[in-house]
Amino acid sequence: MLTVGVIGCGYWGPNLIRNFINLKDARVKICSDLDENRLEHMKSLYPSLQTTLDYRDIVNDPEIDAIVIATPVSSHYLLASESLQAGKHVFCEKPLTRTTTEGIKLVEQADEAGKTLLVGHTFVYTAAVNKVKDLIISGELGDIYYMSTARVNLGLFQEDINVVWDLAPHDVSIMNYVLNSRPVAVSAVGYSYIQPGINDVAFVTLRYPGSILANLQVSWLNPNKIRKTTVVGSKKMLVYDDISSLEKIRIYDKGVDVIPHYDTFGEFQLSYRYGDISIPKLDESEPLKMECQHFIDCIKGATSRSSGRHGLEVLLVLDAIDQSMAANGSEIEIAYPESLG
Amino acid sequence: MLTVGVIGCGYWGPNLIRNFINLKDARVKICSDLDENRLEHMKSLYPSLQTTLDYRDIVNDPEIDAIVIATPVSSHYLLASESLQAGKHVFCEKPLTRTTTEGIKLVEQADEAGKTLLVGHTFVYTAAVNKVKDLIISGELGDIYYMSTARVNLGLFQEDINVVWDLAPHDVSIMNYVLNSRPVAVSAVGYSYIQPGINDVAFVTLRYPGSILANLQVSWLNPNKIRKTTVVGSKKMLVYDDISSLEKIRIYDKGVDVIPHYDTFGEFQLSYRYGDISIPKLDESEPLKMECQHFIDCIKGATSRSSGRHGLEVLLVLDAIDQSMAANGSEIEIAYPESLG
Amino acid sequence: MLTVGVIGCGYWGPNLIRNFINLKDARVKICSDLDENRLEHMKSLYPSLQTTLDYRDIVNDPEIDAIVIATPVSSHYLLASESLQAGKHVFCEKPLTRTTTEGIKLVEQADEAGKTLLVGHTFVYTAAVNKVKDLIISGELGDIYYMSTARVNLGLFQEDINVVWDLAPHDVSIMNYVLNSRPVAVSAVGYSYIQPGINDVAFVTLRYPGSILANLQVSWLNPNKIRKTTVVGSKKMLVYDDISSLEKIRIYDKGVDVIPHYDTFGEFQLSYRYGDISIPKLDESEPLKMECQHFIDCIKGATSRSSGRHGLEVLLVLDAIDQSMAANGSEIEIAYPESLG
Amino acid sequence: MLTVGVIGCGYWGPNLIRNFINLKDARVKICSDLDENRLEHMKSLYPSLQTTLDYRDIVNDPEIDAIVIATPVSSHYLLASESLQAGKHVFCEKPLTRTTTEGIKLVEQADEAGKTLLVGHTFVYTAAVNKVKDLIISGELGDIYYMSTARVNLGLFQEDINVVWDLAPHDVSIMNYVLNSRPVAVSAVGYSYIQPGINDVAFVTLRYPGSILANLQVSWLNPNKIRKTTVVGSKKMLVYDDISSLEKIRIYDKGVDVIPHYDTFGEFQLSYRYGDISIPKLDESEPLKMECQHFIDCIKGATSRSSGRHGLEVLLVLDAIDQSMAANGSEIEIAYPESLG
Repeated sequence: MLTVGVIGCGYWGPNLIRNFINLKDARVKICSDLDENRLEHMKSLYPSLQTTLDYRDIVNDPEIDAIVIATPVSSHYLLASESLQAGKHVFCEKPLTRTTTEGIKLVEQADEAGKTLLVGHTFVYTAAVNKVKDLIISGELGDIYYMSTARVNLGLFQEDINVVWDLAPHDVSIMNYVLNSRPVAVSAVGYSYIQPGINDVAFVTLRYPGSILANLQVSWLNPNKIRKTTVVGSKKMLVYDDISSLEKIRIYDKGVDVIPHYDTFGEFQLSYRYGDISIPKLDESEPLKMECQHFIDCIKGATSRSSGRHGLEVLLVLDAIDQSMAANGSEIEIAYPESLG
Repeated sequence: MLTVGVIGCGYWGPNLIRNFINLKDARVKICSDLDENRLEHMKSLYPSLQTTLDYRDIVNDPEIDAIVIATPVSSHYLLASESLQAGKHVFCEKPLTRTTTEGIKLVEQADEAGKTLLVGHTFVYTAAVNKVKDLIISGELGDIYYMSTARVNLGLFQEDINVVWDLAPHDVSIMNYVLNSRPVAVSAVGYSYIQPGINDVAFVTLRYPGSILANLQVSWLNPNKIRKTTVVGSKKMLVYDDISSLEKIRIYDKGVDVIPHYDTFGEFQLSYRYGDISIPKLDESEPLKMECQHFIDCIKGATSRSSGRHGLEVLLVLDAIDQSMAANGSEIEIAYPESLG
Repeated sequence: MLTVGVIGCGYWGPNLIRNFINLKDARVKICSDLDENRLEHMKSLYPSLQTTLDYRDIVNDPEIDAIVIATPVSSHYLLASESLQAGKHVFCEKPLTRTTTEGIKLVEQADEAGKTLLVGHTFVYTAAVNKVKDLIISGELGDIYYMSTARVNLGLFQEDINVVWDLAPHDVSIMNYVLNSRPVAVSAVGYSYIQPGINDVAFVTLRYPGSILANLQVSWLNPNKIRKTTVVGSKKMLVYDDISSLEKIRIYDKGVDVIPHYDTFGEFQLSYRYGDISIPKLDESEPLKMECQHFIDCIKGATSRSSGRHGLEVLLVLDAIDQSMAANGSEIEIAYPESLG
Repeated sequence: MLTVGVIGCGYWGPNLIRNFINLKDARVKICSDLDENRLEHMKSLYPSLQTTLDYRDIVNDPEIDAIVIATPVSSHYLLASESLQAGKHVFCEKPLTRTTTEGIKLVEQADEAGKTLLVGHTFVYTAAVNKVKDLIISGELGDIYYMSTARVNLGLFQEDINVVWDLAPHDVSIMNYVLNSRPVAVSAVGYSYIQPGINDVAFVTLRYPGSILANLQVSWLNPNKIRKTTVVGSKKMLVYDDISSLEKIRIYDKGVDVIPHYDTFGEFQLSYRYGDISIPKLDESEPLKMECQHFIDCIKGATSRSSGRHGLEVLLVLDAIDQSMAANGSEIEIAYPESLG
């Protein structure tokens, strides 16, 4: 039985508390927030839950095995660092930290402490994303050529981060996860139409090893809400539409085959395949429940889907996107610290 | 009454002949092709039409006022140049020429000869594209922020040109036309998955004056056929879906308003508008008929929608896209010759 | 300030309690249920709310002005009747009663008592249905020719009522409301594929005054969930799709005009109009909130949108549909009691 | 080599001529029409084709093996009857005849003459309809519960036949074909909103043996063009959307299972299955080509998909629909002549 403390009871914290409470391997002992009203609300929902205004009551509690951090990103580094130092496992909401420097330190600290550091990239716990990964890893799609994704809608504008840091973490996390890889370079163009200096539209192309391109469109300025990813492989192609409730993934048995030839002219002969489309039924479990259970599994030794490393790699990509946007699309190579392997 | 000769009776030529024949201000006297079967076919459709294997019979015919060129692009320069030299007006299929150098010469030659040079960018004669232009030029959309467009499908791969030269001429022509502008710079990334050296997928961002971005996706490797353009303005937004037969344009009365403020903190206050959507009924005339009539009107003095200049500007953009792709997305500024104004 | 008591705290009761509590003109004093767990749950949500296992504590409470009934339909008659007898206004969930006989008695009883009897046909409080009604009543659609509606999905099968009584109450209520009318006759065919004797599929055609037809498809056996209504008028037509979250209503400026003629042949000349489509932005308030407020307004004298009469007329139509299904589609005239006017 | 003559060169005749000419087992010797312009047009397309204003030149030509009739329906009986009498095989466009009496005579005459009589119900030669039939006949859908179909659009109004005779022949032909059955009774309601006496909207329910219901909506007064058929079976369900060009058929692995039970209460236990959706790739051959080839195959002994019997059964159903509409939905049993078996 894992004893959990939760720091931050704002928008997302209560969801984490609810899910950990419902797991049979965990109990939530205590939660903290700077706002007494939020603590009272949590108390009314779960009368046996302890509450505190001071997160150090959680960090210093010897009964606590693991700490869940659901606070604004600026406090992530401090809270996670103190928690690891106190010998706790850490589940930290995304993005991992404000800067890549902080992220690198945190990952190293967790490694040294031998503790689990999990980042809340929830999409990698959805049935849809795991179906995409299965189709890629099993080889059913063939060699992956490229992916393109759109994550656009009207609003909600953030005041402290640009649209890339708001929306692209989902896509980068998903792409790294399903490709089991990480991009080597990025070219991106963006602009700030509404708030000076805060890009609200960005067009990004990532280059993964093996000549895999991944194009991302993120925008707070679009008439429609779109969350759509296309994956093109040499054998099959798929479209993953996260807005659709019942038909999230369509697999197209389509492709282009290069026909081998032995003549002297050496012209390419291409053959197009147009086959069936299939729409698999997906499991409808709550991804957050899977994620919380996975945190416990990781503490027991399982390999993490959204480790600190994963979260840090996302940060490094976002950082490189910012650099490329500042350089009008010039390709920026992404330098991963050696400690990441 | 304009007397027209047509060079090239392959796939597209017969459509041009049919449309010119049906105009009351024009007659088609003669057509040429290198393939006798095509000439016989034209003869069977229009018994009074003269035919010839030698295009010079058309160029040198003093009765001919205007020459329509519907041959492979590699012959455009020679045929158009000789036609202009012979004092004929020229309607040339797109792309104008193989190289920008050829295109510049042709435009200059037409200027010097005082003859009309029209390029067959048919999309600018469709009701849908003109509706988009009206909505932009009239100010109904407000200031234009950005456009994004996807022109993707499975196949048909070309062997001599890449996907940018195959599909993007439509989008660049449309964008230049509806914005009444031309891009100053481009950043593009592409790759060749099927035929070495011939990019089959490209992600392109054009930068127009006034900080307008235009993103283009072109691909021969996509499970779905998509021809969709989003235009985002400060007052309204629209989506133009050319695949839809009855609902090509959707106008969204949506936007984000920056609320003026007078306090000392100077925080941005944003207000989101979500209003009606309207789908205008569009005229269903054949665009090619409009284009052929427009050619006659231009000869009589009208301002051309798809002049040689327009066609040449498209070439210059495509050329810059190729350069940026070769430079992994680095921004390439587009140099327009002074003669273009 | 209206003092309300609620009988029944199962699935729907808590929603009613929440909404009445949030109205500024009402307070909820007490609720009852046969299940103590439900009462405890309500108590935890609203600590100041009184609870009781015996509904008579509510009926006999002199402080109570109005009683809300959210129990299984079989108890509606008894509870509403006792409440009216005790001088209370009654808000009763749909369907009003199990039989038309009970319904007639209840409506008469409310009339005699001079008390408000409102039936919970929530759809007539939605923005979409009221938009449809506005378009009809204002004459914007012209004369109404016919309506057709589909309310189908896979499951959930009921064991005590057939698919007509499960799903058609919504459509009949909506149609009567938007047409401000009630059908005079019905022809219906149905069948029970899964549970013997309980029709799970039905095709129904209602005949309203003025030759307006209304066709209903209801089914528990359909691969897709569909809630779609088409309204065809002489000037315009509309489709109301309740599944769509953002584009519920599409108004088509389309029609067929009969052109007057004065020649001797007297042939009909028809002209088709194909105009714009518009998708109005709808208010997104919770319909149940509107409904609860409306109950208070009715007590103060407003005309009810879903009065006991309205609820009873729905019952009479459902009853006639059953009769016609039993008679293989033979038309059944619907007899409305004289007391309904 | 079959020698064919074609009577009627209006809208559809040229398509039949083109297809028969392209078959390797047939040649078209001669065609007739009452309009000389049409004959000249055919001559210009096929210079070796003989033409005549008098259909008897075809009927009496001993070289002719088979006669194709593509004239208005009022002439079908006379032309087909004379053709059969002259010992020719007959391919007659749908509907077979104006009256069921004529249809019965024609079928009997063909039987007695031992000649092939094929009716041009083209839908039964489409890949989509045959896919539906395969899925039904193979048992993949399980027992068929019911079908429902909508064939609606705005216009084109006919002046001599109502919407049932205009649109429903397609659906009845398709349903009879895929179910390999014919309805025993019908209940229908319709109305004439535009042209007095000519119903432009109809709601029809057919009852097939085995308690299979088939509901048809046909309308000339609908804002959208819809051609959609739902087939609900005990194992799977499908939707066939003929408007979709690439995704005509969606097969849903969904259903409701009745769980056997052995307890004394005998309550029904239902289990819902929600599985994958698949969209099969369909052959895109021209159905008319299949139909013409099939005519030749039938002459050689193959069993006809759209025999005179099939065409006559469609007529008998249409006739019964008219009767039921006249009786306000009362069920009409369909009497099939004994000679039909």
